[in-house]
Amino acid sequence: MLLLHLTDVDEEGWAEALRATLDGYPVVRRGDDYDPAAIRYIFVWKPEANAFVGLTGLKAILSLGAGVDALLQHPALPEAPIVRFVDDDLSQRMSDYVVAHVTMHHRLYTRFHADQKARRWRQLYPPAASETTVGIMGIGVLGQDAVRRLKPLGFDLRSWSRTPKSMDGVAGFAGAEQFDTFLAGTDILVNLLPLTPETTGILNSDTFAKLRRDRLAGGPVIVNAARGGHQREADIVKALGDGTLGAASLDVFETEPLPATSPLWDIENCYITPHVAAISNKKSGVRYFSGIIARHEAGDPLINVVDRERGY
Amino acid sequence: MLLLHLTDVDEEGWAEALRATLDGYPVVRRGDDYDPAAIRYIFVWKPEANAFVGLTGLKAILSLGAGVDALLQHPALPEAPIVRFVDDDLSQRMSDYVVAHVTMHHRLYTRFHADQKARRWRQLYPPAASETTVGIMGIGVLGQDAVRRLKPLGFDLRSWSRTPKSMDGVAGFAGAEQFDTFLAGTDILVNLLPLTPETTGILNSDTFAKLRRDRLAGGPVIVNAARGGHQREADIVKALGDGTLGAASLDVFETEPLPATSPLWDIENCYITPHVAAISNKKSGVRYFSGIIARHEAGDPLINVVDRERGY
Ligand SMILES: NC(=O)c1ccc[n+]([C@@H]2O[C@H](COP(=O)([O-])OP(=O)(O)OC[C@H]3O[C@@H](n4cnc5c(N)ncnc54)[C@H](OP(=O)(O)O)[C@@H]3O)[C@@H](O)[C@H]2O)c1
Ligand SMILES: NC(=O)c1ccc[n+]([C@@H]2O[C@H](COP(=O)([O-])OP(=O)(O)OC[C@H]3O[C@@H](n4cnc5c(N)ncnc54)[C@H](OP(=O)(O)O)[C@@H]3O)[C@@H](O)[C@H]2O)c1
Repeated sequence: MLLLHLTDVDEEGWAEALRATLDGYPVVRRGDDYDPAAIRYIFVWKPEANAFVGLTGLKAILSLGAGVDALLQHPALPEAPIVRFVDDDLSQRMSDYVVAHVTMHHRLYTRFHADQKARRWRQLYPPAASETTVGIMGIGVLGQDAVRRLKPLGFDLRSWSRTPKSMDGVAGFAGAEQFDTFLAGTDILVNLLPLTPETTGILNSDTFAKLRRDRLAGGPVIVNAARGGHQREADIVKALGDGTLGAASLDVFETEPLPATSPLWDIENCYITPHVAAISNKKSGVRYFSGIIARHEAGDPLINVVDRERGY
Repeated sequence: MLLLHLTDVDEEGWAEALRATLDGYPVVRRGDDYDPAAIRYIFVWKPEANAFVGLTGLKAILSLGAGVDALLQHPALPEAPIVRFVDDDLSQRMSDYVVAHVTMHHRLYTRFHADQKARRWRQLYPPAASETTVGIMGIGVLGQDAVRRLKPLGFDLRSWSRTPKSMDGVAGFAGAEQFDTFLAGTDILVNLLPLTPETTGILNSDTFAKLRRDRLAGGPVIVNAARGGHQREADIVKALGDGTLGAASLDVFETEPLPATSPLWDIENCYITPHVAAISNKKSGVRYFSGIIARHEAGDPLINVVDRERGY
């Protein structure tokens, strides 16, 4: 039996679609009448404190989110394996966001917009893509997809991960030892890390000061599409103001929705989107999770299982 | 003998670089002492009225510009073949511009920027790239390069040309008969046409009204990176104001520099750059034009010759 526990999401729609696809396999929702001990799978988004009470027969926790940082903080999380959402459509949308913001900054949008407001015609030729280095932090599912999109555009690419990774045409850096070298050659820093104790607050003043300064007119740029917990917003405000950063594109925030009192809203070279970089698509989500359940019921191992030790 | 006649450009720098590469072949500049009848090639940018006087032995006119619309208007243009500049670096930079502006509009930048100014957190998920159709007018050297960059991003692509063209994964439309059908399925219209009598003013109210309206929130978008003569700026002002267009990115203008009095400067959903989409790079230009001369002197035919009848 599959239990849906999706807060702030169209749970009913997901239930219907999963029932249609799972072909007889029982699907229940929170309010329904069911025996908790009979639940083998729970599909969660923002689970409440009592979400897992009585689920003694649980085989897996299915996470609608690709990131499981919040789920891992749940005070009563059972030991069952956690399967996270991994999906081509999600990756495509995330890359859409990343490419749009990387290319906008590469083409010096902030500078030309300021000139436009001043009715000023000042020619300045942006560097070629091949002269601009995009440094991607986190080269997992999303980072690799971003590479696939950015490479045909001609950018020079480098990546940073926990363990050494090699991708064709991407200079790979790994671990704390290589972080500074990675930053020193980066003009546009893209964050696609999971949020863990190690990566919390990684977008801070120290990091910004280590980016390459002499390539992009206006200064280096950050693009954060991962988690608000990765960024120190006070440091971003300071760096955008004193020129340490030329611009910042932020899709995520320490507190969401971003409070109306945040100074970020008014900063000209801060580009805010309301956590819309990528959404979990119902159609492909239903295909993915019903496939996970059907194959697991048939005896196959689970895929995309979170490593709780690593935190992602 | 090669004569340089480059206005508003570092003619001296080009002369030095061409001399170094042409290895003994004589290169002269306007002020120099030379016999006009001995000039076999003239390399031009914005040639003055008397540029071609006395050049009785001319074999070819080399154009620093990729577009030759202005050159073809020269009142005393000799009959020698015109070789235009075609260059990978130029194409790359043009595609950098096109991709940056297409992706920015696809990700609904205008909407999110307005929300930011109002400190408003309103989630709206942009369509996936695959749900968005980019229609490219002109599928020559630059249009084909834009296709190569936009395709890996996942966009649905269509092209419009004078004669039927087929490119893998691009729906091809050609001629006046298919123009309306081409527009009817286009969300983001990119102009990479040459400026000819047929294409002058093609970005006008009629054209805008025929674009697809129901896909991109905010309305369809135009991106003009070709020539100012392609656009009717009064029509653009109107269309951006009444919602016929959601946004316009313009790198070129009817009059350049864009006069300080133009209403375009102040329009929020008009994105102005000062004709910097692509620049002719000296290093690759020297390689290209010295190759043209060396091979032609060795008896090979000229390449990238302009068809004066067609006007490009
Ligand atoms: N804003 C949104 O709409 C949105 C949507 C979806 C996802 N996200 C976020 O994006 C994150 C990444 O997703 P994903 O699917 O690409 O994750 P993933 O496949 O697990 O990849 C994670 C990458 O980060 C690296 N990493 C982890 N800890 C690190 C550390 N301490 N130092 C250096 N590198 C480290 C990993 O290194 P190894 O390769 O060595 O393991 C790996 O390359 C998610 O966790 C989620 O928070 C945001
Ligand atoms: N803003 C800048 O910085 C910048 C820099 C470089 C170039 N440009 C401009 O970009 C233009 C295009 O360059 P290119 O090298 O790609 O030119 P190209 O290789 O000659 O290609 C021109 C394309 O336009 C099509 N075309 C011409 N007249 C047409 C008409 N009446 N109806 C429909 N299609 C028509 C052609 O159709 P066929 O395929 O049937 O011949 C061809 O596909 C140049 O002319 C120049 O003005 C601007």
